[in-house]
Amino acid sequence: MTDTWLTSLITNTPQEGYELAITLSRRGVKYTQPDMETLKKLRPDYADSADGLTAASQVIAINFQTVAAANNYWRS
Amino acid sequence: MTDTWLTSLITNTPQEGYELAITLSRRGVKYTQPDMETLKKLRPDYADSADGLTAASQVIAINFQTVAAANNYWRS
Amino acid sequence: MTDTWLTSLITNTPQEGYELAITLSRRGVKYTQPDMETLKKLRPDYADSADGLTAASQVIAINFQTVAAANNYWRS
Amino acid sequence: MTDTWLTSLITNTPQEGYELAITLSRRGVKYTQPDMETLKKLRPDYADSADGLTAASQVIAINFQTVAAANNYWRS
Amino acid sequence: MTDTWLTSLITNTPQEGYELAITLSRRGVKYTQPDMETLKKLRPDYADSADGLTAASQVIAINFQTVAAANNYWRS
Amino acid sequence: MTDTWLTSLITNTPQEGYELAITLSRRGVKYTQPDMETLKKLRPDYADSADGLTAASQVIAINFQTVAAANNYWRS
Repeated sequence: MTDTWLTSLITNTPQEGYELAITLSRRGVKYTQPDMETLKKLRPDYADSADGLTAASQVIAINFQTVAAANNYWRS
Repeated sequence: MTDTWLTSLITNTPQEGYELAITLSRRGVKYTQPDMETLKKLRPDYADSADGLTAASQVIAINFQTVAAANNYWRS
Repeated sequence: MTDTWLTSLITNTPQEGYELAITLSRRGVKYTQPDMETLKKLRPDYADSADGLTAASQVIAINFQTVAAANNYWRS
Repeated sequence: MTDTWLTSLITNTPQEGYELAITLSRRGVKYTQPDMETLKKLRPDYADSADGLTAASQVIAINFQTVAAANNYWRS
Repeated sequence: MTDTWLTSLITNTPQEGYELAITLSRRGVKYTQPDMETLKKLRPDYADSADGLTAASQVIAINFQTVAAANNYWRS
Repeated sequence: MTDTWLTSLITNTPQEGYELAITLSRRGVKYTQPDMETLKKLRPDYADSADGLTAASQVIAINFQTVAAANNYWRS
């Protein structure tokens, strides 16, 4: 990808950090499968699947660990 | 999502921290599938499934790592 | 849940810490599926399944990372 | 379990640390399914399965992270 | 493999770090299955599969944790 | 196993560290299934499978976290 989409891991709030973790998780998918048509077609396979949603939440949790550490857990 | 649901990772007790980890895990699901009807319909697929419950507990465990570190493990 | 089940991550020994990690792992299941009858019914699905047991051990391992860090690895 | 099986995470060498990680991984299985007959019966399900062996190696890797950190990575 | 492909974990930006995490994830596959023909043949099995894409994103997330820590999270 | 295969987590370069992570991942398999004939027979089950290769890469990623931390990320 040639666009710039990640310039910093620092966010103002934990919630913005969580949403950045979601972005990171989605980018991992898009780098692997860049074709938007295919991605759209596959959406029901995980978004309407209990296992798929839990797996998605797990990837977000792993990325959130990284973002939270980067922000020193927004401690003060 | 436009509502504010995460303003801090700091909690008074480890148990509150664990419950925050559950909230984080559920939010990962909701961000991916915001439709509440679909989520309700999928509930038996993981809540009545041994594999689904273990997977849910795993996501909570990962988020609890983050919350526990943020709180310096409630050491004193 | 309204009962208090987690007041500290500190344990006297690594083994007690490992057993706390098991408690944390089981609580993740119970918070997701509070109905004890359902949980009892599902037990053979993971306890008599190689994949289920490995997955259970994985969740324990993740929670043990947290407990071990909290206790500074019981280094002295 | 009433026996004492884990008194320290400290080992003399990284290899002993890796073997301790294996012990931790197996204990997670045994705490979940204490019946040795059942465990013996399930052995082919993971030991003769590519997926099962990879999953077993993953649990060991997670526990090895803990043991290695406890030993300060046997740095000197 | 005899070629040199990884001389440093340090990158200029988080995005380059994320892309290095992708490289690390792909190398894990290539070390396990070096035959490029087989890899090409298998591509649709994960790139056109919701579960496969989520799993790929998870491996990237784990490697990104390493790269981000190496770069001290590009904090300043 | 009685042979000595792991005397240090320290490597000269990140690439050697990555290759050590591969060794660690394979050892986790071999400790669980020491029979080389069985392992050889199972190889196509993961090396010719998209899911199997992603799972293998994930175990390597987890072990690489450990090796990278041990080497202080080869920072200088």
